[in-house]
Amino acid sequence: MSKQMPIAHPFDDDKLREECGVFGVVGLKDAANFVALGLHALQHRGQEAGGIVCHHPEHGFNNARRFGYVRDNFTKESLMSTLPGPLAIGHVRYSTAGSKGQTAIRDVQPFFGEFSMGGAAIAHNGNITNADSLRRELIERGSIFQSSSDSECIIHLMARSLQRTIPERMEDALRRVEGAFSVVAMTRTKLIGVRDPLGVRPLVLGKLAEGWVLSSETCALDIIGAEFIREIKPGEMVVITAENGVESHFPFRPQPSKFCIFEHVYFSRPDSSYGGRSVYETRRQIGVELARENPVDADLVCAVPDSGTPAAIGYSQESGIPFAMGIVRNQYMGRTFIEPTEQIRNMGVRLKLNVNRALIEGKRVILVDDSVVRGTTSRKIKEMILDAGAKEVHFRIASPPTAWPCFYGVDTPEREKLLAATMNEDQMAEHLAVDSLKFISLDGLYRAVGEPEGRNKKCPQYCDACFSGEYPVRPADMIAKGFELKAAE
Amino acid sequence: MSKQMPIAHPFDDDKLREECGVFGVVGLKDAANFVALGLHALQHRGQEAGGIVCHHPEHGFNNARRFGYVRDNFTKESLMSTLPGPLAIGHVRYSTAGSKGQTAIRDVQPFFGEFSMGGAAIAHNGNITNADSLRRELIERGSIFQSSSDSECIIHLMARSLQRTIPERMEDALRRVEGAFSVVAMTRTKLIGVRDPLGVRPLVLGKLAEGWVLSSETCALDIIGAEFIREIKPGEMVVITAENGVESHFPFRPQPSKFCIFEHVYFSRPDSSYGGRSVYETRRQIGVELARENPVDADLVCAVPDSGTPAAIGYSQESGIPFAMGIVRNQYMGRTFIEPTEQIRNMGVRLKLNVNRALIEGKRVILVDDSVVRGTTSRKIKEMILDAGAKEVHFRIASPPTAWPCFYGVDTPEREKLLAATMNEDQMAEHLAVDSLKFISLDGLYRAVGEPEGRNKKCPQYCDACFSGEYPVRPADMIAKGFELKAAE
Amino acid sequence: MSKQMPIAHPFDDDKLREECGVFGVVGLKDAANFVALGLHALQHRGQEAGGIVCHHPEHGFNNARRFGYVRDNFTKESLMSTLPGPLAIGHVRYSTAGSKGQTAIRDVQPFFGEFSMGGAAIAHNGNITNADSLRRELIERGSIFQSSSDSECIIHLMARSLQRTIPERMEDALRRVEGAFSVVAMTRTKLIGVRDPLGVRPLVLGKLAEGWVLSSETCALDIIGAEFIREIKPGEMVVITAENGVESHFPFRPQPSKFCIFEHVYFSRPDSSYGGRSVYETRRQIGVELARENPVDADLVCAVPDSGTPAAIGYSQESGIPFAMGIVRNQYMGRTFIEPTEQIRNMGVRLKLNVNRALIEGKRVILVDDSVVRGTTSRKIKEMILDAGAKEVHFRIASPPTAWPCFYGVDTPEREKLLAATMNEDQMAEHLAVDSLKFISLDGLYRAVGEPEGRNKKCPQYCDACFSGEYPVRPADMIAKGFELKAAE
Amino acid sequence: MSKQMPIAHPFDDDKLREECGVFGVVGLKDAANFVALGLHALQHRGQEAGGIVCHHPEHGFNNARRFGYVRDNFTKESLMSTLPGPLAIGHVRYSTAGSKGQTAIRDVQPFFGEFSMGGAAIAHNGNITNADSLRRELIERGSIFQSSSDSECIIHLMARSLQRTIPERMEDALRRVEGAFSVVAMTRTKLIGVRDPLGVRPLVLGKLAEGWVLSSETCALDIIGAEFIREIKPGEMVVITAENGVESHFPFRPQPSKFCIFEHVYFSRPDSSYGGRSVYETRRQIGVELARENPVDADLVCAVPDSGTPAAIGYSQESGIPFAMGIVRNQYMGRTFIEPTEQIRNMGVRLKLNVNRALIEGKRVILVDDSVVRGTTSRKIKEMILDAGAKEVHFRIASPPTAWPCFYGVDTPEREKLLAATMNEDQMAEHLAVDSLKFISLDGLYRAVGEPEGRNKKCPQYCDACFSGEYPVRPADMIAKGFELKAAE
Repeated sequence: MSKQMPIAHPFDDDKLREECGVFGVVGLKDAANFVALGLHALQHRGQEAGGIVCHHPEHGFNNARRFGYVRDNFTKESLMSTLPGPLAIGHVRYSTAGSKGQTAIRDVQPFFGEFSMGGAAIAHNGNITNADSLRRELIERGSIFQSSSDSECIIHLMARSLQRTIPERMEDALRRVEGAFSVVAMTRTKLIGVRDPLGVRPLVLGKLAEGWVLSSETCALDIIGAEFIREIKPGEMVVITAENGVESHFPFRPQPSKFCIFEHVYFSRPDSSYGGRSVYETRRQIGVELARENPVDADLVCAVPDSGTPAAIGYSQESGIPFAMGIVRNQYMGRTFIEPTEQIRNMGVRLKLNVNRALIEGKRVILVDDSVVRGTTSRKIKEMILDAGAKEVHFRIASPPTAWPCFYGVDTPEREKLLAATMNEDQMAEHLAVDSLKFISLDGLYRAVGEPEGRNKKCPQYCDACFSGEYPVRPADMIAKGFELKAAE
Repeated sequence: MSKQMPIAHPFDDDKLREECGVFGVVGLKDAANFVALGLHALQHRGQEAGGIVCHHPEHGFNNARRFGYVRDNFTKESLMSTLPGPLAIGHVRYSTAGSKGQTAIRDVQPFFGEFSMGGAAIAHNGNITNADSLRRELIERGSIFQSSSDSECIIHLMARSLQRTIPERMEDALRRVEGAFSVVAMTRTKLIGVRDPLGVRPLVLGKLAEGWVLSSETCALDIIGAEFIREIKPGEMVVITAENGVESHFPFRPQPSKFCIFEHVYFSRPDSSYGGRSVYETRRQIGVELARENPVDADLVCAVPDSGTPAAIGYSQESGIPFAMGIVRNQYMGRTFIEPTEQIRNMGVRLKLNVNRALIEGKRVILVDDSVVRGTTSRKIKEMILDAGAKEVHFRIASPPTAWPCFYGVDTPEREKLLAATMNEDQMAEHLAVDSLKFISLDGLYRAVGEPEGRNKKCPQYCDACFSGEYPVRPADMIAKGFELKAAE
Repeated sequence: MSKQMPIAHPFDDDKLREECGVFGVVGLKDAANFVALGLHALQHRGQEAGGIVCHHPEHGFNNARRFGYVRDNFTKESLMSTLPGPLAIGHVRYSTAGSKGQTAIRDVQPFFGEFSMGGAAIAHNGNITNADSLRRELIERGSIFQSSSDSECIIHLMARSLQRTIPERMEDALRRVEGAFSVVAMTRTKLIGVRDPLGVRPLVLGKLAEGWVLSSETCALDIIGAEFIREIKPGEMVVITAENGVESHFPFRPQPSKFCIFEHVYFSRPDSSYGGRSVYETRRQIGVELARENPVDADLVCAVPDSGTPAAIGYSQESGIPFAMGIVRNQYMGRTFIEPTEQIRNMGVRLKLNVNRALIEGKRVILVDDSVVRGTTSRKIKEMILDAGAKEVHFRIASPPTAWPCFYGVDTPEREKLLAATMNEDQMAEHLAVDSLKFISLDGLYRAVGEPEGRNKKCPQYCDACFSGEYPVRPADMIAKGFELKAAE
Repeated sequence: MSKQMPIAHPFDDDKLREECGVFGVVGLKDAANFVALGLHALQHRGQEAGGIVCHHPEHGFNNARRFGYVRDNFTKESLMSTLPGPLAIGHVRYSTAGSKGQTAIRDVQPFFGEFSMGGAAIAHNGNITNADSLRRELIERGSIFQSSSDSECIIHLMARSLQRTIPERMEDALRRVEGAFSVVAMTRTKLIGVRDPLGVRPLVLGKLAEGWVLSSETCALDIIGAEFIREIKPGEMVVITAENGVESHFPFRPQPSKFCIFEHVYFSRPDSSYGGRSVYETRRQIGVELARENPVDADLVCAVPDSGTPAAIGYSQESGIPFAMGIVRNQYMGRTFIEPTEQIRNMGVRLKLNVNRALIEGKRVILVDDSVVRGTTSRKIKEMILDAGAKEVHFRIASPPTAWPCFYGVDTPEREKLLAATMNEDQMAEHLAVDSLKFISLDGLYRAVGEPEGRNKKCPQYCDACFSGEYPVRPADMIAKGFELKAAE
């Protein structure tokens, strides 16, 4: 499968990757068609596979799961006509790094379970940090798992709950679950949305005509012309029917919220918004803060496209140094070409990016990128820029050093592969052999996302574990496997 | 085929489209692998199909032609291993509007012919304006055509030439041909490049290690790390061997050159360069000129992505009005989704673009686009911007009104479908219902491409027939079919 | 999927169809390759899909399930290399008539379950007649079913068993199950085979070098060169390891055996053997009995190919009337062609069979077929024979009238669609408008399969429910759905 | 492509193979659908690829060429709806041994040419023995060949003819051509059939309602329900229109006819007929002659299925030794499986055939096969029979020793690979290590095909070059490549 896998970000092998997007609709004719559009708009959150489950009063539950892009599967009349009814949910996913080789279609969500009171389907964005022990316990009691996905635990916990309604069983199940989760689920008549008590992953509510919509991001409301109503609150469960609208519950013990700050930095689409401000504008503001914290004299500000562009624009506007498209991304990226000879230096990079030599030659260039993970790509881009004749190369990074893996639904390399886990800023600059390398500070990032006082050290306003190593939920399974938390200071 | 066809520009159904790209290599091991990379970099010049012919001293000529993207076909070891040898040429193509429905794999270039002195392959970017009459004449004499392509004439003319070498036969053939052509051809030992006497389509020469490269654009030299040597001159034929390097001939009667000015405006990649200046920089300069000619008071300058971006940056820099990503392009564009209801306004546009509502709301927006062809897309984009709450919308177009079809290798609608063929600027503004609509002037465009005095009316420095209606080569076949030239003034 | 499905028997839409074949190997390197060959030899028992599960000490369990023929899937190096290890089982299947439209890859066996003491896989030939009530009960207790297959019950029953070893859990599970089953299963180290107490479906044991083999039929032992050891006995469970060989248990209450007599008539391959006699020879003997019971004066004996051929040869040998290939089967059968006009009479038949007109013309023809189910095909074949100029057509059927559906793993139409359910022999002859139509008697059939005294009415030696309506196991689920058993006489 | 190629005869790698079948229809609505059916019935004459060209008064000429079986391509509504009109021709083909690796879709017939008086398409069964020199001559004059097929010469000769109508140009062209050809061709209004002066390859005329049909064999008339009218005569050209019916010409110098005797032995389907006698009956008669010439005492007569069956039946009937299905063919043959170990003896054979062990054991077996080419298969089958316990194996071959290659449209190995080229009957028996091996005599074969006096040595009634080495047309190209004719006696 991996060979057939389309790749969207030029260097997503050297990026953190969101692992899932969820979308659900109730109260609109042919809901699955809306879900297909919504998943298409959320494709950046998961490009490996997608699935839709729907329900029709006469035709019951139907589902389809496919590897590949939404646009290549859920656009076919022959498929979509098998997905009738006014209620549907969907999911796009990456595999996690570990299980990638073995990904099977049965790992593709939504998962479906037949209970004695009827069927239910569930789609999950996030990661369950105690999935291993839950799984062991459930197998011990006679559950048969059909996938390697942590999310399947939720269905089995529901099947064994003693509660009588499906929403109550879901509450029961989710109270046993630790970690980050934004869940979109459905019964024959209800669309259900839940966010974990910390609200790590996003989930928003929209309205279109007589129908209701749940989505990971607002950009997917836009594509179907739905109105943004509000974000689902941390720890909230909403149960929605076409007839009675939205009922809200808070089944979990309240906790201070910890939204993932990396959604602002990289994961979310620039045209999504949180708290009334577009992600683009937040990223531009990160560039502004970055320019204030780390000025340098230069001729041009260039972005590593496309994700570095908003911060580069902000940097340019704050610094007064002109922005230019010094690196151009090949829009037909994709598979791996056969390398003809070793004479082609950095062929992998050239396939995806090209330096605008005539612009760059002889110039002092500021390169703005969103993050540095392994550092492998940064090195190659620097070489391309120098090959093209740049006089100086100054990296400015729109996030703090990524020093810790994420266990809440993001695919990160093991800690030892993160460049920032073993080097400080200066060591990284030397390692990459650039004229300078500067990251935005954690406080600067908090200011850019709208916290004028910066980070609250006592109780950070966001989950920033990937930068700080402070994990708001104990990663139990990982600790059992030997992961060591940051020593208390 | 058409349903499977990927679409790269968000609205290329409302754009002029380059129809071909050519690439050739001699003197490098496994030349076909280099050609695959070159064609990948030229994919924007033709996305429907691609072909490669190569020659190996032992295995002779081999070829492969495929519908679809280069990256999806010419990356497979199983295919590429059938294309050995140090000499190869390739071609990417669009079908022309007319024959689209009937495009067959046999219309995919390069074309190959077996002559008594050996085989030759030929790939052609441009359009032969007297192909119909040549074809009739050749059939009358017993030639069997295997494709509907105008380019096949060249092979048949070569087959019937009385000259003794293949390059001489090619000269013979090309002297009978009218129109625009940049040709890359090969025999068992020679790589051949030819540009028509006017030099309408581009062709450049590069060098990599012991090998030589011909390419439509410089960006395809970059991808394989080849050094740019020079442009092939209008009317020049180069015959290249690994042993003797480049021999240059000028087989045609000299004429003033007429490079296609639209290559600067839209066709070429922004990271290609002509005359030492990057296309990006030229487009930015068009934005500067546009701002000088057509200023307007506003809050934001936004581009219609991606092709309007460089001019929008130029407009912003010249006017001082901040640039912002007010419209975001969905990077997973593609097939047509099933429209769930009529409640989704402008769904076609929403699939490809999304307005950054939080940025746009309440703002006066300048929208910079590269061209207006039918005007259908401009109208929809304006509606999206207004739906998102913009207070004013001012269109600024980085090219003069497109009022005439191209007959030199570009796919244009019939004249009556070009908005500018029947309306002036004010009528178009009214038709599109925007607050203002302004095009760059023809003189402004000439200044931006590096002619400080503007357009030489007596003998224009470029082919600008699509703007001016002044065709440097008489389009004989089209006139025979009833096309009326602009009345002499 | 259904359109792509190859069809092997010329008129299997008018035949009873075996629903499954099973095969397993332990103690041979790359056991999955042997299983692929075995399934290929059992393809006639199930053509819709196939699956293999295997185990390797280092690589653990692996599996692959595919729609389509074994030869089209399990021959690819890329797939087979993912199935390592010395222990493997496999399954080929038809869908049952009911669920055909909804067949999903998750219905394809073997099924796999992870238990606390390790994983196990199971493949099942037969049908569980109390599956519906078992399923309801298991869901009530919290089991999540992933397929619509009756066989999945076995895995869930095993998961909930209180026994400590997998073979013991399987005994536990199978004691709850009613109906017909020949099961091949595996753990990490054991190959397990079980036949239901009646022994309705076949299962044989073979040996190859150091390894052991279980197979539905002997023909699949032949393909891998394995030696036939013996049949697994009704009610027997064998647990086989490479080290200790075959252990035999009898976990069920003993009952008189009831092997399916239709395996002799039609399902099994002619080169398989039961009780030391080849199925071909038994079928030839049926033809001999048929000739004795129902002689007629004629010129030629022809078979409805291919399944009628052995009985036709026997009929010819007994009657002295020459055998001839009066009907020739098109070996490239397959998909449905577009019917060009209504001028083509019986096009469906012509695609599959052609009458040898020059042989048939003016002749009195005896046509030997294996069975009459709906009678639709018999009618068309008769018309073709008459169109070709035959003077008389006498049908001789190598099985008694099929008047009752099978509930033990064979796909039969509903009772009302069986021609023999509503007509006696004479009525059928009239209905088909043939000169005569005669079936072998039930006693004649028993004689041919080796019971010189014929059928033991008190306790029939075989399951012949499809002819007699006497069901050896009460079809509980079907009765719950309204099926009426034959009234006691 | 070759890996995907389905294989129909169990050992067609050790058989002579017919290379083509042709079919044409005029005067029936949607003629292409009839052609699809006809080609399906002729699939045994060419399984690699098929093509159809058709003409519709409004939609002009259309065509489709596909690799693979007719049933897999020309049954799709999406394809067939692109082939409208009342006039169509088609072709199925094998590649010849030599060019197999390079077979391209452009080698798939029918070939189409646009002449000044309109288009024409042509499909050819046979082989042009002077194609090489014709090709050289045509290239010299400026023709561009698009395929490696000998048949393309005919189109180019037609293009250069000075005649004014297409039928006249075809006569002109075919008079330059040497070898064997049965041609079906079409213009916009005419269906044309031609047989070479010797009539080596078959071609028959049929009638269906208002329409006319041309076909390689009568079995393809049967499939569409057309009436057999007559065979096209050697040297005859028929020009057929819906309005005027059949016009007959004899454009070539008359010669004694030389129909290919191997069409009777192996190529044609058993349900086709020549001269009013079915091929099945002829083959049965060969068996009768074989039994008379070569009797032996034995227990069973078995056929090597399926092609040896009619002769085996004849042998059994003449000898009185019972016929039995001692070898059963796997009807799901196809691709190559991965050989699990070397423990499987003769795996290639086992995949295709299985010996009915219970029948064979301890028996003296006569095995009837249609021919011996390389002898590789005969050897393996003998081993299987002995492995199964046969006491004696006697081969009886239904054709004389195949000692010479065919140059008239049949794929034969080079002479040195033909077993009979270097060994006599006894040597072959010893080489194959069988108890006896006997071929039918050439005279016996002539008697069986209806020549009571046997072969006319002065002027043989058939082409039997593969047995006798007497080539009725000088194979000019092969002689130029070094082939040595049999020395005159």
